[in-house]
Amino acid sequence: MPESILSGIQSPDDVKRLSREELEPLCEELRQTIVNTVSANGGHLSSNLGVVELTVALHRQFTAPGDKIIWDVGHQCYAHKLLTGRRDQFSTLRKTGGISGFPRPSESEYDTFVAGHSSTSISAANGVAKAKALTGDPGYVVAVVGDGAMTGGLAYEGLCNAGRSHDRLIVILNDNRMSINQSVGFMARHLSRLRLQPRYVKTKTNFGNGIARIPLIGKPLHRLMLRAKSRLKNWMYHGSSLFEEMGYYYLGPVDGHNLRDLIRALQTAKNIARPVLLHVETVKGYGYQPALDNPDVYHGISRFDVESGAPQAGKPGFSQAAGDCLCRLAEQDKRICTVTAAMTGGTGLAAFAERYPKRCFDVGIAEEHAVTFASGLAVGGALPVFAVYSTFLQRTYDQLLNDTAIMNNHIVLAIDRAGIVPDDGETHQGVYDVPFLSTIPNTTVLAPSTYAVLELTLKQAIYETPGIAAVRYPKGCEPQSLTTYQPDGQPFTLFRDPLASTLVITYGRLFGNALQAAKRLRAKHPVSILKLTRIHPIPEEVLSIAAAYPRVIFFEEGARAGGVAQQLGAALLDLRYDGVYDPVAIDTIVPHCSVEDGLKLTGLDVDGMVRRIFGEATGRAE
Amino acid sequence: MPESILSGIQSPDDVKRLSREELEPLCEELRQTIVNTVSANGGHLSSNLGVVELTVALHRQFTAPGDKIIWDVGHQCYAHKLLTGRRDQFSTLRKTGGISGFPRPSESEYDTFVAGHSSTSISAANGVAKAKALTGDPGYVVAVVGDGAMTGGLAYEGLCNAGRSHDRLIVILNDNRMSINQSVGFMARHLSRLRLQPRYVKTKTNFGNGIARIPLIGKPLHRLMLRAKSRLKNWMYHGSSLFEEMGYYYLGPVDGHNLRDLIRALQTAKNIARPVLLHVETVKGYGYQPALDNPDVYHGISRFDVESGAPQAGKPGFSQAAGDCLCRLAEQDKRICTVTAAMTGGTGLAAFAERYPKRCFDVGIAEEHAVTFASGLAVGGALPVFAVYSTFLQRTYDQLLNDTAIMNNHIVLAIDRAGIVPDDGETHQGVYDVPFLSTIPNTTVLAPSTYAVLELTLKQAIYETPGIAAVRYPKGCEPQSLTTYQPDGQPFTLFRDPLASTLVITYGRLFGNALQAAKRLRAKHPVSILKLTRIHPIPEEVLSIAAAYPRVIFFEEGARAGGVAQQLGAALLDLRYDGVYDPVAIDTIVPHCSVEDGLKLTGLDVDGMVRRIFGEATGRAE
Repeated sequence: MPESILSGIQSPDDVKRLSREELEPLCEELRQTIVNTVSANGGHLSSNLGVVELTVALHRQFTAPGDKIIWDVGHQCYAHKLLTGRRDQFSTLRKTGGISGFPRPSESEYDTFVAGHSSTSISAANGVAKAKALTGDPGYVVAVVGDGAMTGGLAYEGLCNAGRSHDRLIVILNDNRMSINQSVGFMARHLSRLRLQPRYVKTKTNFGNGIARIPLIGKPLHRLMLRAKSRLKNWMYHGSSLFEEMGYYYLGPVDGHNLRDLIRALQTAKNIARPVLLHVETVKGYGYQPALDNPDVYHGISRFDVESGAPQAGKPGFSQAAGDCLCRLAEQDKRICTVTAAMTGGTGLAAFAERYPKRCFDVGIAEEHAVTFASGLAVGGALPVFAVYSTFLQRTYDQLLNDTAIMNNHIVLAIDRAGIVPDDGETHQGVYDVPFLSTIPNTTVLAPSTYAVLELTLKQAIYETPGIAAVRYPKGCEPQSLTTYQPDGQPFTLFRDPLASTLVITYGRLFGNALQAAKRLRAKHPVSILKLTRIHPIPEEVLSIAAAYPRVIFFEEGARAGGVAQQLGAALLDLRYDGVYDPVAIDTIVPHCSVEDGLKLTGLDVDGMVRRIFGEATGRAE
Repeated sequence: MPESILSGIQSPDDVKRLSREELEPLCEELRQTIVNTVSANGGHLSSNLGVVELTVALHRQFTAPGDKIIWDVGHQCYAHKLLTGRRDQFSTLRKTGGISGFPRPSESEYDTFVAGHSSTSISAANGVAKAKALTGDPGYVVAVVGDGAMTGGLAYEGLCNAGRSHDRLIVILNDNRMSINQSVGFMARHLSRLRLQPRYVKTKTNFGNGIARIPLIGKPLHRLMLRAKSRLKNWMYHGSSLFEEMGYYYLGPVDGHNLRDLIRALQTAKNIARPVLLHVETVKGYGYQPALDNPDVYHGISRFDVESGAPQAGKPGFSQAAGDCLCRLAEQDKRICTVTAAMTGGTGLAAFAERYPKRCFDVGIAEEHAVTFASGLAVGGALPVFAVYSTFLQRTYDQLLNDTAIMNNHIVLAIDRAGIVPDDGETHQGVYDVPFLSTIPNTTVLAPSTYAVLELTLKQAIYETPGIAAVRYPKGCEPQSLTTYQPDGQPFTLFRDPLASTLVITYGRLFGNALQAAKRLRAKHPVSILKLTRIHPIPEEVLSIAAAYPRVIFFEEGARAGGVAQQLGAALLDLRYDGVYDPVAIDTIVPHCSVEDGLKLTGLDVDGMVRRIFGEATGRAE
């Protein structure tokens, strides 16, 4: 095995000390390390392999942490982590207690800004650069943003505002011709036109030279034309780059896998005393053939075999079950449409998109638009279902409230990745949807525990629930213990133990844990279980049932503030409940961890439930 | 007085029956009616006067309600209301129980979509048009959107998606060269370039003809150049219209006060079987000289004198007090910056912007960007204060949670128009900020009752409160009854009546009402009053104080679901409180009304408080 260059890199300073010749082998080592680690831990592969050279070039040209590098979305920061003092911990990537798969300022001073949600980096960089300008701090600010993120309105707002700022700010547009799915629409077309630009400029020059060779009047005519051309060029140049028009000095396109070109382009960008947009072309999955062949599969992947590239077979989970159910319903009802914000695969809509391409709308990374568009679909008489991850639904609070709920328009939300989400960390946890949806009028939230209940609740949401009808379910499979559970279609179900003086209330996949906990406790401490399916508004009858128990414990896989458990508490007080009410919900910002570890951390695993139920008979446990 | 044409208009059908000659007098009558009504009731003047001809042309060319007209923001719908069966009620504009100043589907089938918040119309129209395409409904869909709204990311998302839809959809860009403040940045520049386009095309043609006149080789060279030109034009045309590149057939610019041109342009647009962007130039305040002279003042205005145009003098309220305070603080501390989303005047920042132009950032109608930008400012070491209306802050839920709270970055929110907002209706009520902010970690919410407390809380927010520090205050003045109130700077203040068995808890301006109610009840039913200043998180000590009273009433000028009263209820249950807890908060979507009527409607006026306190000593009133 040749001597490792990477093992000598303790900080970006060491990258600067390397000879030019050592940079390419370093990139090779970075790629190997990334492939090996992701194959063992799962993670984002294609995007990280695409920016290896760019990352090396950035740390060669800029001096972090004084210079600030802000990664958009953040699923491309692995090489950055390896070069900024986290090589030794890299094997713990995405593991509980290990390093995060996303930038995390609390992890390292080299991580300027959290990410996880798309299209934020330019706005953040605009702010950091402006603060630097105000305080006279001379450092550079660099935002690295993918072409897919450019479909988001926040990126547009950021571009418009940063472009008119006159600050030193470099926006690197990492153009890999693909967001998570194929990049859609205007920006993709605009970029593909920019890519052709050098060829065009060349043709134009030849044309002029041809004129100059005409005898006699050729040269004066050429001058005349050059004058005209410079006027035309002014228009054309605007035409060829939206970014120039926005106020940026446009550089590019540059081959994002050619270190020399990249370093030179960054050097040029550094010398321009106003906002720069550097257009870099990269290839997702560069350097690893299986990822090149299937960049979509390797975007976010669980463990896989490095040699063959074969990914560990995942079981079809709730996403797939939802997609299948929507296909069945759409077959019966032509009004049913689905909307996705660049997550056709992730939300299980691939089959739907293939079978009903005219009724499946991928709007790009534009969740706000997705909701207002869906509300418009509803006004027009369609039955729209917006399939979206819980964490990304956060972006649509106002579109739900103002553009939908106030009119009581009927849209369905199929909320995927609800609850604790494995491995991705703080920015991907789906624990706020219930709290914020509960503050929106004309909104109903259903939380199925199994695929069978998912199917029932999707039907109820589409056909029986006015206004905003949300169905939320976790990432992964239905609980093993519930595969034979027979749903009753009711808003709640009470499993009464006649000897119980404690009532356990819960919903979603925690129902499986609650059943197991009850089983373990049956002899010593029998409990009744109330499984909520409609979690908001809380079914009226639940209140009187709960009020009849001297002790009620609510296990909620969601944030405490504003959650169902808190709402039930307020309602019980209204009834002058004088028993012990013990809501167990999530109080902390949950870091990256497995679902099991996350539930354990928050006291929502079976052991935690048993302890909570058994531990204290009066007063609040802990 | 000449015979009225307007009085003969019962529906848009009647507009179609008029002769061409009657249209201009109709516009004149519409203007007079609008000016007279707004002078009496207050309302949006400049924007409504600007679209009179456009509205007449729309109802002449399209057949609503089958054809759908969607007004962006909606503050330009007065002529539309006058032509769609609401002439007789127009004198009730914005009054309690009268017609709304914004489109309101529950008011009329001619109002397709609510508005109030900017930049939503294209997304909504995209949805309606798509549903029409799916269901084979042949009608047209028209979105009317101002140039100011184009600074919002949602408009960009809508434009991108609608442009690639192939549906019949007409986006009318109402270019009045001004959003609420001066339109900023890229889109303003782009539009000003489009306005010059016809002249440019003419110059280009002359240039070619000049070449053709050169002896001998002139004509072949001209042909050669024409070929080249057509290729160049292809580029140039893209350059000259972003909208073409987005997939629209671009028409314009058209004089928005020339009925003939407008009607012809709409006719052309109707015949194009794909998305059209019609660029219309209008003048805000057209036809009323005082509004033309001061379009900003007459954008949203209270009563004024029609002859002189003199607006009723408004008293400086909380907005001005906040702006003045921020000026004072900024003088002492160069790190303090303010951010506004096109609301410099509305949020009281005019003086700040004038004194500290380099530290006041108007980002356009781009609230999402404003928050992420502010979070970036914080990372860079500045002390950003985002001054924003409560209702518009709804747009930033994810930017607050993901881009700020997760990192615990310190930004200050100066939340104006919190609580019931006079006259504008559902879409402007500031009653959701407390519920949704309460679900965001690392967030503190302060609610001053007077200007003096506002000053103290702004200082506390800037200097003593980590994370997101929000200070919220209503539209209007401090309560008359509190002008001499001496603040103590504490998170809460208890005014204890030793004879009281009832504790009244409240915050914000309701503290004034509570004092008055207590005064009226002193003899019969003495109460203690607990005024919260820090409303989230609730100060710990408040719980034990409340728990000691057999009866606690919480008056909250905010939505019940997720509000402070509900949070306190859950916390009291935790303490096993066995008294009567009676939270009075807002359960309904509050329509347009005066503040007085709004408080009365929700039981939060002095009379309502007296009744609530006195009415029922046990159990829940109502």
